Amino acid sequence: MDIDFISKLTKENNSKIVLLVMDGIGGLPKTFNGQTELEKAHTRNLDMLATKSICGLQIPVANGITPGSGPGHLGVFGYNPIKYQVGRGVLAALGIDFNLKPGDVAARGNFCTIDKKGLVTDRRAGRISTEKNKELCKLLCKKIKIPGVEVFVETVKEHRFLLVLRGKNLSGELHDTDPQELGKKPLEPRTLSGKKDKTADIVKEFVKQAGAILKDEKPANMVLLRGFSKKPNWPTFPESFGMKSAAIAAYPMYRGLAKLVGMDVLKTGETIKEEFDAVEKNWKKYDFFFIHIKKTDSYGEDGNYNNKVSIVEEVDKELPRLMDLEPDVIIVTGDHSTPSVLKKHSWHPVPVMLYSKYCRPDNVKHFGERECVTGGLGPRFPAEDLIPLALANAERLEKFGA
Amino acid sequence: MDIDFISKLTKENNSKIVLLVMDGIGGLPKTFNGQTELEKAHTRNLDMLATKSICGLQIPVANGITPGSGPGHLGVFGYNPIKYQVGRGVLAALGIDFNLKPGDVAARGNFCTIDKKGLVTDRRAGRISTEKNKELCKLLCKKIKIPGVEVFVETVKEHRFLLVLRGKNLSGELHDTDPQELGKKPLEPRTLSGKKDKTADIVKEFVKQAGAILKDEKPANMVLLRGFSKKPNWPTFPESFGMKSAAIAAYPMYRGLAKLVGMDVLKTGETIKEEFDAVEKNWKKYDFFFIHIKKTDSYGEDGNYNNKVSIVEEVDKELPRLMDLEPDVIIVTGDHSTPSVLKKHSWHPVPVMLYSKYCRPDNVKHFGERECVTGGLGPRFPAEDLIPLALANAERLEKFGA
Repeated sequence: MDIDFISKLTKENNSKIVLLVMDGIGGLPKTFNGQTELEKAHTRNLDMLATKSICGLQIPVANGITPGSGPGHLGVFGYNPIKYQVGRGVLAALGIDFNLKPGDVAARGNFCTIDKKGLVTDRRAGRISTEKNKELCKLLCKKIKIPGVEVFVETVKEHRFLLVLRGKNLSGELHDTDPQELGKKPLEPRTLSGKKDKTADIVKEFVKQAGAILKDEKPANMVLLRGFSKKPNWPTFPESFGMKSAAIAAYPMYRGLAKLVGMDVLKTGETIKEEFDAVEKNWKKYDFFFIHIKKTDSYGEDGNYNNKVSIVEEVDKELPRLMDLEPDVIIVTGDHSTPSVLKKHSWHPVPVMLYSKYCRPDNVKHFGERECVTGGLGPRFPAEDLIPLALANAERLEKFGA
Repeated sequence: MDIDFISKLTKENNSKIVLLVMDGIGGLPKTFNGQTELEKAHTRNLDMLATKSICGLQIPVANGITPGSGPGHLGVFGYNPIKYQVGRGVLAALGIDFNLKPGDVAARGNFCTIDKKGLVTDRRAGRISTEKNKELCKLLCKKIKIPGVEVFVETVKEHRFLLVLRGKNLSGELHDTDPQELGKKPLEPRTLSGKKDKTADIVKEFVKQAGAILKDEKPANMVLLRGFSKKPNWPTFPESFGMKSAAIAAYPMYRGLAKLVGMDVLKTGETIKEEFDAVEKNWKKYDFFFIHIKKTDSYGEDGNYNNKVSIVEEVDKELPRLMDLEPDVIIVTGDHSTPSVLKKHSWHPVPVMLYSKYCRPDNVKHFGERECVTGGLGPRFPAEDLIPLALANAERLEKFGA
């Protein structure tokens, strides 16, 4: 739904809305008749909430489309992810509190391993430690010199870093250099248009110098870059929907996504318990809370069915703390599916429930994929309509038309 | 669905289609595990029809959007309510058989009560009688003089009246003067654009004179205006869908909506029985009948759960008369939900069933919200697709493409 359309109907009141995102929550059974991770999990509290909620499955982007973290979150934030596209570089920058300026070009980098022929043998350099990453970034920052451009190389986490180029008339319209496959060389920096551009030349120079500096390092002896982009100029979430909005996320990417749409990012620890602590602590100060749980996705990507189940159960255990705060509307969902049998993000619809006093509950008694098919939101609810529906349930929308 | 697209596929035959709209039919349970008004009602005939129908829930405008009567009806008439928007003034004019001419500006008025400081204390002046309204309108018509403009003030019902300004180069692009809240002054007439315009000045003069004339009246001592608009120029329902079309509605607003899309408005009494009498009497003359039942909505707005249930039961009792006429297609639905627990229109999907010999029935046995979730139309069927589906079921649509 068009954000401007909703924005005109928005009114303010004292209600509170919580959006609880379990990253990659949607799953698959290991065998045809088996249970998905969410179905397997013992989720007494989520199930109790489901009986009082309207349930369904949501489509983050479009049928058959596997969303990255960006589009997956923009959808549940009420932004059409096809209309509102942003590069990974910008997200990475926001996620580590890098103060991106207008005109800066940001890219996400991986430290990787290449062999003597220059072919990539590990795209993540064995997931080097964050400490090692810091050391390498410092080295690159110190040594790389490109005339006319200021170069920032900042640690994100493990093998991930952020590259920012600051200079005049730079372009974010560049291809990734990450070949996404082993046994291939990093790709030549080049423009999306195929035309010659000075930014592509600058990136070439950066990669060349970085390769030389890292040559004798092990295992991180090269860099891969992706998601070149500039910061977009979008309607903000708090203004569009009329809510003072806070984000609680242990991982930088999701803090970045929340910041991008104008939410305040709250201080939190890394555990689920600490995230719920942050909600309690800030409850009075905000109308809207986005809570992000990362590890459902991480374990899904690792193919670790049992640990993904455990994370769901851990969230379930904390849920009563949220209920005790008596939010007017709660949405529980994910940004996409990450079935542990696939070990990656997938296109499958994502379980969702929306609780409010006025939600008109359906007959779903267990928060799981198969049961949600029969829910009142339907099996293909557009993710971008969740925020409008939450606003309606919080009585924050005016009637449309006479 | 685009009206032009459907229009090109339309063909004529002798089939008859009935659209039975119970205004605000969708509801909510009073407690989480309770029944909605429709679920509570004993509806032997509606249930029997449901077993032979394809059922579901329809979305009048979009997920989370609470429709006014205009958008709600335009949706079930097959018009996308976001694309086809019309002001309340025009609807009110059509609803009382006021012969609106091109260029006229219409607005809906409320007689209201203001205190000595000019602050609104009752937006409906205690819902004065229609008789009193007529007296006041006559007074205003007689006394108000604005150079260069003909002014019509016509009674609608209770506290509601119609204002029409007739003159050269008038604009309908004006803000409401109704502050929508108690304790505030009526708003100054002004243009939507913020620019100076003579129509705003004319309305200012009208309000000034009306205030002076009504000064000593009790309780209706002021007027509030909203929905300034001109009659739109849309494709008509009978031409677009190839059906001689009739509307039976006891209340002016709904006659107005039907007229707006080009339906013939038939003479009827105020009771449900009289509305069904009108269907019988005119059965041979039309291909399509829109029947409007108002009181499901009125009792919903009053918060009267039991009376809303009774109205549904009254409709159920009359239904066999409709069945005896053997229509080829019957749609039973509402224009929006009006849960008695909310006492107002709401965003909830609206129960719908479509009967025809060829409808492919589902497993729904009772016409109620929860059961309809599992129906063949799904829990989120777009209202604007109901007419195309009815045409298909009446074999009034050609195949698309070779």
